[in-house]
Amino acid sequence: MAKLTSRKEDYSKWYNELVIQTGMAENSKVRGCMVIKPYGYAIWEKMQAELDRMFKETGHQNAYFPLFVPKSLFEAEEKNAEGFAKECAVVTHYRLKNDENNPGKLIVDPNAKLEEELIVRPTSEAIIWSTYKGWIQSYRDLPILINQWANVVRWEMRTRLFLRTAEFLWQEGHTAHATKEEAIVETKQMLDVYADFVEGFMGIPVVKGVKSANERFAGAEDTYCIEALMQDGKALQAGTSHFLGQNFAKAFDVKFATKEGTLDYVWATSWGVSTRLIGALIMTHSDDNGLVLPPKLAPIQVVIVPIYRDDEQKNKISEVADKLVKELKSKGISVKFDDDDTVKPGWKFNEYELKGVPLRIAIGPRDLENGQVEMARRDTLEKSFEKLDGLADTIELKLEEIQTSIFDRAHKFREENITEVTSYEEFKEVLENKGGFISAYWDGTPETEEKIKNETKATIRCIPLENIEGTETGTDFYSEKPAKFKVLYAKAY
Amino acid sequence: MAKLTSRKEDYSKWYNELVIQTGMAENSKVRGCMVIKPYGYAIWEKMQAELDRMFKETGHQNAYFPLFVPKSLFEAEEKNAEGFAKECAVVTHYRLKNDENNPGKLIVDPNAKLEEELIVRPTSEAIIWSTYKGWIQSYRDLPILINQWANVVRWEMRTRLFLRTAEFLWQEGHTAHATKEEAIVETKQMLDVYADFVEGFMGIPVVKGVKSANERFAGAEDTYCIEALMQDGKALQAGTSHFLGQNFAKAFDVKFATKEGTLDYVWATSWGVSTRLIGALIMTHSDDNGLVLPPKLAPIQVVIVPIYRDDEQKNKISEVADKLVKELKSKGISVKFDDDDTVKPGWKFNEYELKGVPLRIAIGPRDLENGQVEMARRDTLEKSFEKLDGLADTIELKLEEIQTSIFDRAHKFREENITEVTSYEEFKEVLENKGGFISAYWDGTPETEEKIKNETKATIRCIPLENIEGTETGTDFYSEKPAKFKVLYAKAY
Repeated sequence: MAKLTSRKEDYSKWYNELVIQTGMAENSKVRGCMVIKPYGYAIWEKMQAELDRMFKETGHQNAYFPLFVPKSLFEAEEKNAEGFAKECAVVTHYRLKNDENNPGKLIVDPNAKLEEELIVRPTSEAIIWSTYKGWIQSYRDLPILINQWANVVRWEMRTRLFLRTAEFLWQEGHTAHATKEEAIVETKQMLDVYADFVEGFMGIPVVKGVKSANERFAGAEDTYCIEALMQDGKALQAGTSHFLGQNFAKAFDVKFATKEGTLDYVWATSWGVSTRLIGALIMTHSDDNGLVLPPKLAPIQVVIVPIYRDDEQKNKISEVADKLVKELKSKGISVKFDDDDTVKPGWKFNEYELKGVPLRIAIGPRDLENGQVEMARRDTLEKSFEKLDGLADTIELKLEEIQTSIFDRAHKFREENITEVTSYEEFKEVLENKGGFISAYWDGTPETEEKIKNETKATIRCIPLENIEGTETGTDFYSEKPAKFKVLYAKAY
Repeated sequence: MAKLTSRKEDYSKWYNELVIQTGMAENSKVRGCMVIKPYGYAIWEKMQAELDRMFKETGHQNAYFPLFVPKSLFEAEEKNAEGFAKECAVVTHYRLKNDENNPGKLIVDPNAKLEEELIVRPTSEAIIWSTYKGWIQSYRDLPILINQWANVVRWEMRTRLFLRTAEFLWQEGHTAHATKEEAIVETKQMLDVYADFVEGFMGIPVVKGVKSANERFAGAEDTYCIEALMQDGKALQAGTSHFLGQNFAKAFDVKFATKEGTLDYVWATSWGVSTRLIGALIMTHSDDNGLVLPPKLAPIQVVIVPIYRDDEQKNKISEVADKLVKELKSKGISVKFDDDDTVKPGWKFNEYELKGVPLRIAIGPRDLENGQVEMARRDTLEKSFEKLDGLADTIELKLEEIQTSIFDRAHKFREENITEVTSYEEFKEVLENKGGFISAYWDGTPETEEKIKNETKATIRCIPLENIEGTETGTDFYSEKPAKFKVLYAKAY
């Protein structure tokens, strides 16, 4: 196991080495697609379980829609189509045949050309709304509250493990409502669900906000988002919830009979988070020794490493460890007792540090004599001696403490990295030397936004929700025109 | 809600109407692909949860591999490639562009042709073994025990909801081993896991067996299978577990250093079950009134329908029902109290019968006076009065009884529909008039198998495992040559 490049030295290299060395993911032989390895997938499964529970608690059901979108459906909602047309994988044929000139090789069979091309879904509004058309006749059929766990494909040219891959895993909620108000309430509710999940389980503080028109989801009336800040000062969009208005209902002619007996188009929302969140998880908490995982999502929460010189010592320690394992499991804590003889304790320490196991318990013969163990926290690297007596309770409390503590640390970092600026000089200076979120007045025009983006690569991450309601009176630092909103700028992943 | 076509009248129409009317699935706008609707998906989720638990208990971990297989990898294992080449979706382009002649329409961008075509995975051996090559150097890296939950695409020309669709959901296990023996043990272990799941949770009796060479998975040395019998006398392959030998290791050059210091190719298995199982579930238990679900997989296990004339009655019933709901939930039983005012109890009775809810509890004012409720079993349509006192316990027991009972009924049906034959006349007669499994001697040649298939459409479903070990001495009923095995023939889905 090679030592990781430090974050300071090369943040991007550190990230990549970390993902590879921990066995979370690797690049595959398919351009831009990754293999999610068992350790990475175990984290995703924990995330899925919590999110799925939260979706169901808010009244949603799961379903599954086709992977393919026929071109004629894909192009029906024009803005959505335009937004995704440049990055979609297209199926044109349905058969291969033997290459007569090259025994053992196959070629596309020209006689098996599809009448209509199929797009591999980059997102499922089109296929889902063409289906909802058959499900909705009257207000009695509404609302429809459906979520789907699926893979999607967006042909990205520059990819990075978890953060940006041609294929990724996600969930996409697609809801249909009788009124605009109800759809907006749903959009905001799901933003809150995302924020609660990302803060409460992933330990990542987020800003809730609304995207500028430029940054909106293609086909949405409004895109709500949660924005997080990574340790290198770049922002990361951690989840989006879209109010789609009647755009898809109009594109697919989905009307319903209202209570009043009139016909109206249905109102829509969609919302999604993806395996990209695993990238955010890594970049928020981890350090130069490896991964730091929030206890609530760690596949292994506690590891017990025995330290012994002979079988007699080993047996005594194992007895104590087995009892502890049983107690922890009964508390629902996932624990691994690593009594592998083929590697040394020091090797194991490094390995579990690299893999971000929140708590490590080491037990040696002297510890047993003293009725104690050595406990090491992954997040702070602090070590302490803890009494064997009541150890399971101590561990349970410590895991809760770590969960809170890593959120607090990330929150403190985020707060220290929101800088108010009032001039373009300041803006560029902060962007160059400090990074982070820049809080500044914006005149509300796409022109200003665009110019700043082209000149600095910084984009408006969001208009924080708290800034939408309040009347802000200020001046745009760039155009010097009267401001419409106070927004957060940042360079972003 | 239209009445279902009866099974006797038209089995295939009955099946289709049942799937549609219960809201389990429907055909989508994409040729051959289905939409799995919430009720169908909820059953799949329950199946997934149990299977996933069983996979993990037998030491497997989940991971995720790319959707696409580059053509050069796809064709590496020749038999596998040959087996799937005729039914695969091929991605040839990665971009659409505006159609200049048709404003608002898109066409494939000819400048965005892929250098190498990508096959949408029909199964993942190729992409996974090309990945395993990087993971395996020594015997210490083995075994690799991985499962993936995923969608796959096989371009089927004649599709049927759940049973045969161009895209379907499944799990595919892919394991790598140091020895042939270990790989065979794994193959058989997973067959046992499937049999335990299908019998114990789905209530479907299965025969464990091995496929003839003709019916083997493309690229396998041996395909183990579980075969079930549907109510119309046709067989359905419910799961397969393949011993792949060293075929994929050779195709992708995956060698490992043995303990003895030599180099050897790795041994492989793969195994899968799919959403097809939902079709088997429907066709095994359901009747002319609708779905019959095994309690262990029913999204709603118990429904409570109140019967009242005024609010006073309603309130009294609700009080009792709420208490019962709480008790059932604390036992982990999923229950719905349907107090919807807008439809009549009779409508609800039909609806839950159609949807296969195992137990229906009706509570009226008279019942309350008598300290009882009316309980209706979905499987037998039997009604009984049950005491309110201890009702939750009664329900718990009844659900267990139903689970056993539907398996027993299906098992009895299966046993009654295995017919021994010794002549071709008999064979054709049974096939024509009775259906079911036909147990008969086979000379072991693909020629005999092929001829019988062409003449009767019946195939060898499997050589039952119990017939492989025992020495059978008999004569092939078709060729009149000495038999090698006693096998099960049937027409199959």
